[in-house]
Amino acid sequence: MPYVNIKITKEGVSKEQKEALIKGTTQLLVDVLDKSPATTFVVIDEVDTDNWGIGFEQVTEIRKAAKK
Amino acid sequence: MPYVNIKITKEGVSKEQKEALIKGTTQLLVDVLDKSPATTFVVIDEVDTDNWGIGFEQVTEIRKAAKK
Amino acid sequence: MPYVNIKITKEGVSKEQKEALIKGTTQLLVDVLDKSPATTFVVIDEVDTDNWGIGFEQVTEIRKAAKK
Amino acid sequence: MPYVNIKITKEGVSKEQKEALIKGTTQLLVDVLDKSPATTFVVIDEVDTDNWGIGFEQVTEIRKAAKK
Amino acid sequence: MPYVNIKITKEGVSKEQKEALIKGTTQLLVDVLDKSPATTFVVIDEVDTDNWGIGFEQVTEIRKAAKK
Amino acid sequence: MPYVNIKITKEGVSKEQKEALIKGTTQLLVDVLDKSPATTFVVIDEVDTDNWGIGFEQVTEIRKAAKK
Repeated sequence: MPYVNIKITKEGVSKEQKEALIKGTTQLLVDVLDKSPATTFVVIDEVDTDNWGIGFEQVTEIRKAAKK
Repeated sequence: MPYVNIKITKEGVSKEQKEALIKGTTQLLVDVLDKSPATTFVVIDEVDTDNWGIGFEQVTEIRKAAKK
Repeated sequence: MPYVNIKITKEGVSKEQKEALIKGTTQLLVDVLDKSPATTFVVIDEVDTDNWGIGFEQVTEIRKAAKK
Repeated sequence: MPYVNIKITKEGVSKEQKEALIKGTTQLLVDVLDKSPATTFVVIDEVDTDNWGIGFEQVTEIRKAAKK
Repeated sequence: MPYVNIKITKEGVSKEQKEALIKGTTQLLVDVLDKSPATTFVVIDEVDTDNWGIGFEQVTEIRKAAKK
Repeated sequence: MPYVNIKITKEGVSKEQKEALIKGTTQLLVDVLDKSPATTFVVIDEVDTDNWGIGFEQVTEIRKAAKK
């Protein structure tokens, strides 16, 4: 009965990509720990790039700098 | 000083239902553990049905299948 | 398919009290949102009183002051 | 490699305030624990005031009462 | 820069199994979203079976019933 | 009424260091957002180095490699 929470930045992740994350994570828990898929939850949180910081910087600013 | 996080799918939960979850959870912590309501937090996260998976499937798809 | 995380300080909570929290929270989600108990998870985290702060203070110190 | 999650109510927090939270938290982890900023994540969740309860009440209602 | 939190019951998960979860999850984020492994965190929480409930029951009791 | 969760690896963090994290985080929320300390929670989770992965590796292994 695992619960997996995936936090990623909100940058145009498609429904199909979310499905791939859900399927892949669930399969991993089946393969590694023999968990039951019926009670395996995967919850994806998409976080605004203003709200995620790394190395003192907002991801919004990191993305801007990367484009220059 | 408990902190409770309730994650549910975003499917039209009303303000009154949220209030009922907050009141009920707080009362439970008072009744079972004698916690002070003044420092009991309840935070509700509503998750898009594309972003919640169970049994390899997105809840969006589970809801569609249930309607057929 | 709700997921509820209850964070409380680690101060001698019994197995029976945990069971009461699990049953009460699950019933609340059934009553308020008509959720299925079979896919309702309740996870309790017990946190060391050194690791929980409120009002600038560790709970360890708050408990000591309350006993004086 | 710390991960810090800051949950606050969604009440008009500016991009600059978020930046200040990210910079301040990261600096704190450098100062206290000598952590590397390059692998220090700060994630801010803004929560609707209907979805946050304290003392049995939704923050929405607490704010209304405070304005009277 | 994803952050993944895997919550599982504490039932003898080996260091190798944890490594497999970390490697598999990181690879999934590389494959699906082209994320950088260097800033992909995977954190595993092992939860006591008394502290995890599903369908009104503590996992401790579910495991006992399954052995009968 | 903010809630802050700091996740760090379990590597001998002292009670005084935890106190410094709690005080510093609370002060930051007072300074940046004018929050009330009385309803500001800081919860520190210490995670076993086997249970934290970054760049495909368990922190346990990263620490070993760094000592060579």
